[in-house]
Amino acid sequence: MLQISDKASRMPASAIRKLVPFSDAAEASGVKVYHLNVGAPDIKSPDCAVDTVVEKCKGMHHLSYTNSAGLMELRKGMVEKYYKKIGIDIDASEILIDVAGSEAFSVAMQIAANPGDEIIVIEPFYTNYQTFAFLYGITLKAISTDIREGFKVPGIEAFEAAYVPGKTKAVLLSNPCNPSGKLFTKEEMLQIGEFCRVHDLFLISDEVYREFCYTDEPHFSAMNIPGCEQNVILVDSVSKRYNLCGARIGCIISHNKDVMACALKFAQSRLCPPVLGQYASIGALDTPQSYFDEVKQEYIRRRDCAVEELNKMPGVFSPKPMGAFYTVAELPVDDAADFAKWLLTEFRLDSETVMVTPAASFYRNSEDKKNQVRIAYVLEVPLLRRAMHILSEALKAYPGRTV
Amino acid sequence: MLQISDKASRMPASAIRKLVPFSDAAEASGVKVYHLNVGAPDIKSPDCAVDTVVEKCKGMHHLSYTNSAGLMELRKGMVEKYYKKIGIDIDASEILIDVAGSEAFSVAMQIAANPGDEIIVIEPFYTNYQTFAFLYGITLKAISTDIREGFKVPGIEAFEAAYVPGKTKAVLLSNPCNPSGKLFTKEEMLQIGEFCRVHDLFLISDEVYREFCYTDEPHFSAMNIPGCEQNVILVDSVSKRYNLCGARIGCIISHNKDVMACALKFAQSRLCPPVLGQYASIGALDTPQSYFDEVKQEYIRRRDCAVEELNKMPGVFSPKPMGAFYTVAELPVDDAADFAKWLLTEFRLDSETVMVTPAASFYRNSEDKKNQVRIAYVLEVPLLRRAMHILSEALKAYPGRTV
Repeated sequence: MLQISDKASRMPASAIRKLVPFSDAAEASGVKVYHLNVGAPDIKSPDCAVDTVVEKCKGMHHLSYTNSAGLMELRKGMVEKYYKKIGIDIDASEILIDVAGSEAFSVAMQIAANPGDEIIVIEPFYTNYQTFAFLYGITLKAISTDIREGFKVPGIEAFEAAYVPGKTKAVLLSNPCNPSGKLFTKEEMLQIGEFCRVHDLFLISDEVYREFCYTDEPHFSAMNIPGCEQNVILVDSVSKRYNLCGARIGCIISHNKDVMACALKFAQSRLCPPVLGQYASIGALDTPQSYFDEVKQEYIRRRDCAVEELNKMPGVFSPKPMGAFYTVAELPVDDAADFAKWLLTEFRLDSETVMVTPAASFYRNSEDKKNQVRIAYVLEVPLLRRAMHILSEALKAYPGRTV
Repeated sequence: MLQISDKASRMPASAIRKLVPFSDAAEASGVKVYHLNVGAPDIKSPDCAVDTVVEKCKGMHHLSYTNSAGLMELRKGMVEKYYKKIGIDIDASEILIDVAGSEAFSVAMQIAANPGDEIIVIEPFYTNYQTFAFLYGITLKAISTDIREGFKVPGIEAFEAAYVPGKTKAVLLSNPCNPSGKLFTKEEMLQIGEFCRVHDLFLISDEVYREFCYTDEPHFSAMNIPGCEQNVILVDSVSKRYNLCGARIGCIISHNKDVMACALKFAQSRLCPPVLGQYASIGALDTPQSYFDEVKQEYIRRRDCAVEELNKMPGVFSPKPMGAFYTVAELPVDDAADFAKWLLTEFRLDSETVMVTPAASFYRNSEDKKNQVRIAYVLEVPLLRRAMHILSEALKAYPGRTV
């Protein structure tokens, strides 16, 4: 009998996207769905990004391949106009353009770990780390954090306990964190860096939400951990920073020459990154600071609205996130996956409902946190307030409510 | 000691791109290099493709994600405006947009085969099949064809000999073939289809060069092999068809619902394909037939020039390819890799040289065919003639010449 591979068949479906058929059906039947389920911002892309695509298209003879590592104009531009400004000191040879952050962390994981090896993650973590680990035969070892403690990173002993000599090859984290919105402090990053240095582990630092930090402290990049220059592999992306999710442009950055040489082999195997997206990214480098300032203020308003409204709902708890545009909330339900599906298939408030992402898939052991959801606060405040109202009413009406 | 994974370190470097540093150095020193090494066509992209990008950019608020499977406008458009026209009958649900042909065949291989499984290829084959097989722990079992017989596909007994029950999961081929330019006949495709049907194997048919066929017979797609509807996974791309290599848009097509469901899981793990490239591809669907006719005539002129000139050179042999824009040639040298490097580092004719790709990496056992190169005839005839003259003079001057 013709059979698909066991690997493909056991591959986990995206927790974030697997409810999509239900929201499609709701929308097809005329229901308005407030999408709090996916980190797809609604903020205008910078004009300079789109204008550059138009300009480059106008003079174009044919849309050819670029260097596998990306256009030198983009790599140099990122170094000079972006990384230098935020205090990350790299050379253009230490940056390679990838097909968004997804390709960048997927390649970084393979550079760090063989099939059978382990990578330490701090849960909750971005669910697709688990998907790629599965595909590459890598085991994720999770270090727990507690929603009630604001997802504080535990002390070094938790990392030591997770470490298996000869097996553990890297620590992988996102800072600010998707899904929790947790912003790692400088002290936490230094501790993790020291752990990686002592045990010769790679530190894969996914910093695609770097521009979304809501404390007075500047974001502390893994690239600036002293003594970790060879250990750190930085994963970055233009998707969130410039509201260019569809450009599919990210990068892998490292001072480690062996890492970059391997990243180039992976890059060559898929020929080149999307060229029109590279053009948009070149243009985006001229985005004025005022754009970031305004966007940040907007997200602070949204976060404050979302978190305040959530905590007003009986039985709901969400800590105040200091980064990204997500928050994780505990709901008074047994199984947030059932609840999320019920919202899409059953519940309507004046023909409207909301879509949220069950958070269990952001944990290694998904039985643990079945009452949590991830909320992406990617709607304007009035819409977000309405969405929160619908969620609140839904929780009152939900037959599976626990408290 | 901090070490990159054994997998990443043993991953083969791209045979096609690994000479790039030498050509970069030659060009930096003022030498003109004729690039016959990479299938990067120089033909104008259709205006409708580029115009559509500009139009869509003008009204754009922000460049957001699309569905992981690609824009429905593109999928439906491909079905109606392209596949229907060429006699491939599919529904929009049977097509999923990927990040170019590279992602499409890489996903197809994983859907068909587990680590430890085998896939049958017909050599010479596209070198990156080997790269991805290596990454996924899949063994490629090669069926030999002979340059002196125009790369004729052997009879069924060669396939039966390569077949290992329980291990062999698919046949993977490109038609027309990169690197040989071999166009599979209908009879050859039916034979391979029958072999796959009998043994319940997938047939992964990479048809990205479909529009480049130089016989009077129409291209015979694997999608049209009777009885193989569930076995065939079609890999396609807009890169070559519309001279949009930089768009990075391809697709995976199958009537097999399990295959498409798995392809969607892979697609969701990387969120979405490049959106600006999807726009270019939507526009490209309105490319007039005259564009394809003119391009085909141009490639026939180029092929005739290249193959004629090659066969005039003493000790050189190249069969006349009937598809794609490549030909493989035997040269009177021991090791074409050394020769290709020597062309870039040593040989100059009036400050000009040529770049070719050693063909050994297109074979499973690369010791076998060390005297072969792949020539991409992607230059206009006058430039191609000049490049052939330089190659001819280089062969006369080469110290490692064998005959």
